[in-house]
Amino acid sequence: MAKSKFEYVKQFESEDKLLPNCWIVVRIDGKGFHRFSDVHNYIKPNDDRALDLMSKAAETVMEEFKDIVLAYGQSDEYSFVFKKTTNVYNRRASKLATNVVSLFASSFVYFWPRYFGTTMMQYPPAFDSRTVLYPTDKNLRDYLSWRQADCHINNLYNTCFWKLIQEKGLTPAESQERLKGIENGDLDLSLQLHLSGSSTSRSQSARGHGRGMDSRRSPQMSRKLTRPNIDRLHVDLIGEQFWTDYPDILNPPKR
Amino acid sequence: MAKSKFEYVKQFESEDKLLPNCWIVVRIDGKGFHRFSDVHNYIKPNDDRALDLMSKAAETVMEEFKDIVLAYGQSDEYSFVFKKTTNVYNRRASKLATNVVSLFASSFVYFWPRYFGTTMMQYPPAFDSRTVLYPTDKNLRDYLSWRQADCHINNLYNTCFWKLIQEKGLTPAESQERLKGIENGDLDLSLQLHLSGSSTSRSQSARGHGRGMDSRRSPQMSRKLTRPNIDRLHVDLIGEQFWTDYPDILNPPKR
Amino acid sequence: MAKSKFEYVKQFESEDKLLPNCWIVVRIDGKGFHRFSDVHNYIKPNDDRALDLMSKAAETVMEEFKDIVLAYGQSDEYSFVFKKTTNVYNRRASKLATNVVSLFASSFVYFWPRYFGTTMMQYPPAFDSRTVLYPTDKNLRDYLSWRQADCHINNLYNTCFWKLIQEKGLTPAESQERLKGIENGDLDLSLQLHLSGSSTSRSQSARGHGRGMDSRRSPQMSRKLTRPNIDRLHVDLIGEQFWTDYPDILNPPKR
Amino acid sequence: MAKSKFEYVKQFESEDKLLPNCWIVVRIDGKGFHRFSDVHNYIKPNDDRALDLMSKAAETVMEEFKDIVLAYGQSDEYSFVFKKTTNVYNRRASKLATNVVSLFASSFVYFWPRYFGTTMMQYPPAFDSRTVLYPTDKNLRDYLSWRQADCHINNLYNTCFWKLIQEKGLTPAESQERLKGIENGDLDLSLQLHLSGSSTSRSQSARGHGRGMDSRRSPQMSRKLTRPNIDRLHVDLIGEQFWTDYPDILNPPKR
Repeated sequence: MAKSKFEYVKQFESEDKLLPNCWIVVRIDGKGFHRFSDVHNYIKPNDDRALDLMSKAAETVMEEFKDIVLAYGQSDEYSFVFKKTTNVYNRRASKLATNVVSLFASSFVYFWPRYFGTTMMQYPPAFDSRTVLYPTDKNLRDYLSWRQADCHINNLYNTCFWKLIQEKGLTPAESQERLKGIENGDLDLSLQLHLSGSSTSRSQSARGHGRGMDSRRSPQMSRKLTRPNIDRLHVDLIGEQFWTDYPDILNPPKR
Repeated sequence: MAKSKFEYVKQFESEDKLLPNCWIVVRIDGKGFHRFSDVHNYIKPNDDRALDLMSKAAETVMEEFKDIVLAYGQSDEYSFVFKKTTNVYNRRASKLATNVVSLFASSFVYFWPRYFGTTMMQYPPAFDSRTVLYPTDKNLRDYLSWRQADCHINNLYNTCFWKLIQEKGLTPAESQERLKGIENGDLDLSLQLHLSGSSTSRSQSARGHGRGMDSRRSPQMSRKLTRPNIDRLHVDLIGEQFWTDYPDILNPPKR
Repeated sequence: MAKSKFEYVKQFESEDKLLPNCWIVVRIDGKGFHRFSDVHNYIKPNDDRALDLMSKAAETVMEEFKDIVLAYGQSDEYSFVFKKTTNVYNRRASKLATNVVSLFASSFVYFWPRYFGTTMMQYPPAFDSRTVLYPTDKNLRDYLSWRQADCHINNLYNTCFWKLIQEKGLTPAESQERLKGIENGDLDLSLQLHLSGSSTSRSQSARGHGRGMDSRRSPQMSRKLTRPNIDRLHVDLIGEQFWTDYPDILNPPKR
Repeated sequence: MAKSKFEYVKQFESEDKLLPNCWIVVRIDGKGFHRFSDVHNYIKPNDDRALDLMSKAAETVMEEFKDIVLAYGQSDEYSFVFKKTTNVYNRRASKLATNVVSLFASSFVYFWPRYFGTTMMQYPPAFDSRTVLYPTDKNLRDYLSWRQADCHINNLYNTCFWKLIQEKGLTPAESQERLKGIENGDLDLSLQLHLSGSSTSRSQSARGHGRGMDSRRSPQMSRKLTRPNIDRLHVDLIGEQFWTDYPDILNPPKR
């Protein structure tokens, strides 16, 4: 094609290639979802429809990007882990962050009716997205543990907060006041108990793997299997068990 | 909230604040829209429904981000110009690029039925997005001229390409062969003629401005007015006239 | 040349090209010069030998990099302004910062004997260096004003601090205590007076220009002329006069 | 101190913090050393005075920056490896690159007379410098192997090139022509032979280690010991032996 004299402006674009041989995490996060969940009457503290929709959108992203080895979600956020050797978009940070988040957002709207039925979406939501690099397996696992610990702490608080309102008749302000002491208390202990007990929190963990490898999947950990290659699990990422059960996540088979 | 021992992973996030006092352009671009337009039977060479949907999504973005002073679109791409002094998201590049593109994508799906009626969307689309800085007004105008010249060159070609097929009965291969000479010919001349004649191309230019300022809008340039503060125009951005008519775009009133 | 299997590690290098059409400032700053000046018995508050050596090193840098239009120095720091259109090292930030600072440092040692005579340098000094972009002439001038205002404020303080010690017999601690009030007082007023009076501060401003242009130099402003193309001036950069006298600094003649 | 109204320009500075938990390599490289070596009559193909001066400058850098665990040099370049956990300058890339290179350059001039005696330096040299991150030990070792393989290939060529001139009486052009075939030949084989034979190349490897650890140093590998904590070695970095002998380089003792 003929080039115009304006072509020079292309030089103002900058390169943002990510360091090779590091795990790439793309984390998306809902913008203003406090309001969005209010407007759409999300059930408190956890709305299964909303969480399932989030995971459906995440799966759509995973189907598009085969180099995602694991996705982890909670509330209005989702993290996608690209394998260290990925060369998708030549590892350009903005390409990765924007393609993932836009596909997630369009899928969120596209699949809304499947989960919310006749409840109409009132307005289209936005999400932000960032890329973060983790050089070692330990750093990556600590990242995921960070997000899951965050999820459990929030869930613990939210579960108590809403129980005091829904079952004890407190106002939101009274409930918040009541929980102040606990917030500063030994939440780590609570966290341990919580993690070993049955989960009321709803963190999502979808994982993709190579063909024919699902025989290694522990059935008892998986909540449902959406298609041959992606499992949806509700499982502790902080301990060792998950990583022992799925060794191919940190060491993806070469293709 | 209590902090976990995993919190350190936050240090792996990097800062990406954009240089102050430069125009910020966020350009989004459809991913694989050749296929998307085929699957959804877009009318060739230009499908008004698709272009109107793109502009509707762009307007949704402009309504959310008041610091956008101009948006320009063509085909499956759209550029959003943030004023030089904007401090949205503290000028963080990834925040800007991802919030814009995800809202654009979710709006594209959300408003689809309004433009495509009973034609169902077959799958949710993705867009990429990038930020580019332009230090001077001239650089910014040259950027917009670059995109519009690109639009006209593509349209000129596409219009001829499809006319040869639709009206002369050529196959796509024959049409492409026939246009080879012209492609290498004096397209710049064609472009000039094209720009001064009536437009068959469909570049979109939506502009936002401050409250109560639309009296300065030239009615004959505007195709339709979607709401008090955003005009949708089909207009030459390469020449001087537009910039004389809308001086407040390059010099947004202080708020 | 034959390539080894280790060649892949080159991909870990990142690009750092600076935005086009912006002023590039490279500022170097002495590391630990408080100690360095003590060890070498710098005369307080200002040691002409040290300042002249700094300017000699700066001139060496300016002779090497013809795209530097202005350099400004004070104390143990120096700023070099590259013209907006420079393409030196393809505008790579690290190349610019490191070549400038290493040539400055090697020149500092190389020319030491010329200014310090038989006073031996005790150990080689280090400097840091950074690149900063300024999109407009006003931003650039404000940068230079920032440095010069900083210089005058420091000089005002240091001059008083040492006068109290050298002439009034105070200890350093007493002198510091005595100046506490003034430090919090109206230094801006002092600064104005200081700038219009005769200068005891020693900020350096070397400027390069095209051949045969020194006829436009105001002789009264220049302290000495080191060679045909570089002037060494002691002059106010905050006001208008300097910029009126040297219009070619902000608008360098095309070559 | 009082702040001026120009202070805002500081916001134009950008952050350049390096990713945590990666090896940081700072590589410096002489600017125009072909000319510099000609002007100062360097002995061909390798001038011991020049190489010893380079290593002296490198040692000065290592003495200043205790977090450098290894330095490797050849010809007019030197690489400094900072341990993964270093927090020097808060891991800011420009601070690291510029402090290292300026200290190297000033040391190069400072120690020149010690190695070149009455041969006066004609002009101060410049060096460039860059930071590169390597996430894993293997990546780091491959980087060092890359530099050393490069060194040997160059040395092999230069040794032959100068032998043909000095001993066979060829002109430089004839010598270059004569070596053309070999250049395309099996240099890898040559390299292997070369590495196992006695070295005519002069790659430098200085290493720093903790106090009291030099008992583990293999005496036969070390050429000379410059001070308690830094060894200067001429040794193969590509094979396993070196890394087995010095396990504390990749696993520096915690301080």
